[in-house]
Amino acid sequence: MPVEAKPWLMDRATDAYAAAGVDISAGNAAVSLYKALTGAWKHPDQIGELGAFNGLFRLPGDPEQALVASTDGVGTKILIAAILRRYNSVGADLVNHCVNDILVANATPLFFLDYVAVGKLVPEMAGEIVGGIHQACRENQTALLGGETAEMPGLYKPGEFDLAGTIVGIVRLADLPKTESVAPGDAILALPAIGLHTNGYSLARTLVPEDEWGALLPETSVTFADALLAPHPSYLQTVKAIRAVAHVKAMSHITGGGLLENVPRTLPASCKAIFEQTRWQVPPLMRELVRRGNLSHEDRYRTFNMGIGYTLTVALSEAPRALAAAPGAFVAGWIEARSEGEPAVVVHPARER
Amino acid sequence: MPVEAKPWLMDRATDAYAAAGVDISAGNAAVSLYKALTGAWKHPDQIGELGAFNGLFRLPGDPEQALVASTDGVGTKILIAAILRRYNSVGADLVNHCVNDILVANATPLFFLDYVAVGKLVPEMAGEIVGGIHQACRENQTALLGGETAEMPGLYKPGEFDLAGTIVGIVRLADLPKTESVAPGDAILALPAIGLHTNGYSLARTLVPEDEWGALLPETSVTFADALLAPHPSYLQTVKAIRAVAHVKAMSHITGGGLLENVPRTLPASCKAIFEQTRWQVPPLMRELVRRGNLSHEDRYRTFNMGIGYTLTVALSEAPRALAAAPGAFVAGWIEARSEGEPAVVVHPARER
Repeated sequence: MPVEAKPWLMDRATDAYAAAGVDISAGNAAVSLYKALTGAWKHPDQIGELGAFNGLFRLPGDPEQALVASTDGVGTKILIAAILRRYNSVGADLVNHCVNDILVANATPLFFLDYVAVGKLVPEMAGEIVGGIHQACRENQTALLGGETAEMPGLYKPGEFDLAGTIVGIVRLADLPKTESVAPGDAILALPAIGLHTNGYSLARTLVPEDEWGALLPETSVTFADALLAPHPSYLQTVKAIRAVAHVKAMSHITGGGLLENVPRTLPASCKAIFEQTRWQVPPLMRELVRRGNLSHEDRYRTFNMGIGYTLTVALSEAPRALAAAPGAFVAGWIEARSEGEPAVVVHPARER
Repeated sequence: MPVEAKPWLMDRATDAYAAAGVDISAGNAAVSLYKALTGAWKHPDQIGELGAFNGLFRLPGDPEQALVASTDGVGTKILIAAILRRYNSVGADLVNHCVNDILVANATPLFFLDYVAVGKLVPEMAGEIVGGIHQACRENQTALLGGETAEMPGLYKPGEFDLAGTIVGIVRLADLPKTESVAPGDAILALPAIGLHTNGYSLARTLVPEDEWGALLPETSVTFADALLAPHPSYLQTVKAIRAVAHVKAMSHITGGGLLENVPRTLPASCKAIFEQTRWQVPPLMRELVRRGNLSHEDRYRTFNMGIGYTLTVALSEAPRALAAAPGAFVAGWIEARSEGEPAVVVHPARER
């Protein structure tokens, strides 16, 4: 299945991430358990395996199309929003994350539902959150079909909240990306990230304590607060523009797990992806986090997006057309043949500063 | 719109509920804000108004059918499950609640996605939750299409968790219940509740402190723990059986807000619903909560389901056939003409014990 939408997406963790309280081995064990527990039965209209890659359901009445669904949260980025009382951008984080998660299957979003859970319901706060969700839905031409606002004293502290959302889109089965067509020599185009998006915040919060959020992020004129809350962008329009002029073989949304865990989903077993980090600038926030945490290469590229929000694999001959259609896009790497035992993704680092 | 699925369902609250930390006026204010904020734009395939009654989206390619979606949580029932470390039944609570929420629109469920948020990911605990969700999906012939498990240290305490889900179903527009056909003399059939389902737990937890959960619930042979965690049932099969033999005019799922707030959604403005509580037994748990909290009539019927999980309005002549198809169902009341200023729902109480 060429669909990235992961049925139970975890914040993947690394050594540094584990120290911040997010445990990768527990995540993998839970996913294994889920697969075992859910393997016994599958709905006849469900397409693909229960397990690592699914989220497709045959469209009633049309065997050529499928509904594509994904549920996601914003992670502990919301703790920063809650402390700073800035509730207007988490809606965009949530909606855009979901839009991108089904975009990798070439799905067009249809509708969205939100779940807002609060310790104490303050209407203005809930209104800012839901207003932001509606605005982001509108920008993605996606219906905000409903939602749930739950007041749960005892589970959430007053002022704290959680936020999750579900998106449903549609795709022609013939339009599903054909990962198996990816071949050595293909180019990997990248769309730039504009911050941490919605991953790595448990680690970021340990490296940048709250009393520093008002300070300027080194080498920039923005505060840590602004840099930390920079919204997760939607890549819908950019990807549409690229697909209008170029054939895209596979796409990946760089979320939890970074390049190292998300790009492998876009590769046949015979291929590996080579990234050359000299080809792009790592955003200042991530450079600062790497410096403060003295993060290993593995930690960096598995916990953070390191400046790449989305990848598209195209034949090299298609790359110039695709790049021309998407201002800001760049070639981040290429595909090579992979021998048994080799890693699926290699990131050649830039020289240390 | 005859659809009960509320776009932003709140735990409605009463005086007693407010004292337990759930604030009805804040809930209403938030919903008003949502309506104002989201009124400016609606997707062209969205059916019905943004606001009190929606959740329908035209099925791509078939103008005669619609997708029906709903998002819900389990409320603070999960705090009880977390403390008792009993994770296997909350999945059924979640799935069945969602199934019933779209069942009132006559929708057949297609697929479900879950959101599990934990403070510390313990695979066995997450596995029990997701295993229960999958089992309940299977029992409702609903695909478990995916989900998200988020580990969020800092937001949730270790051992605590939250749980939400989204269901998508399908309905022929011609099969949407026709609330406007409800008329004086119609019978209101009730399907029995088997506990609090997923509403009223913030109040219940203040009335039954944790150190009593191991004690027997008065007049029963079950513990408070078992009574509090009794799972929310799915009414899918029962409602299907009734609809196979009788014409159903309107249905309501008795969730947050109880009979007083949910039944009005099934009534035209010219009608009121009369319930006679002598017609059914209030379950022992609710009797005990009423006694302990010395709850007013209003508090009882707005916070708890008081023994009725689901209602179906049928012509009186259809009632015998419908009842014969649904063991346990009973006539709980009837429809009368409503004059201006009269309440939409009246519950005649049984004599106080």
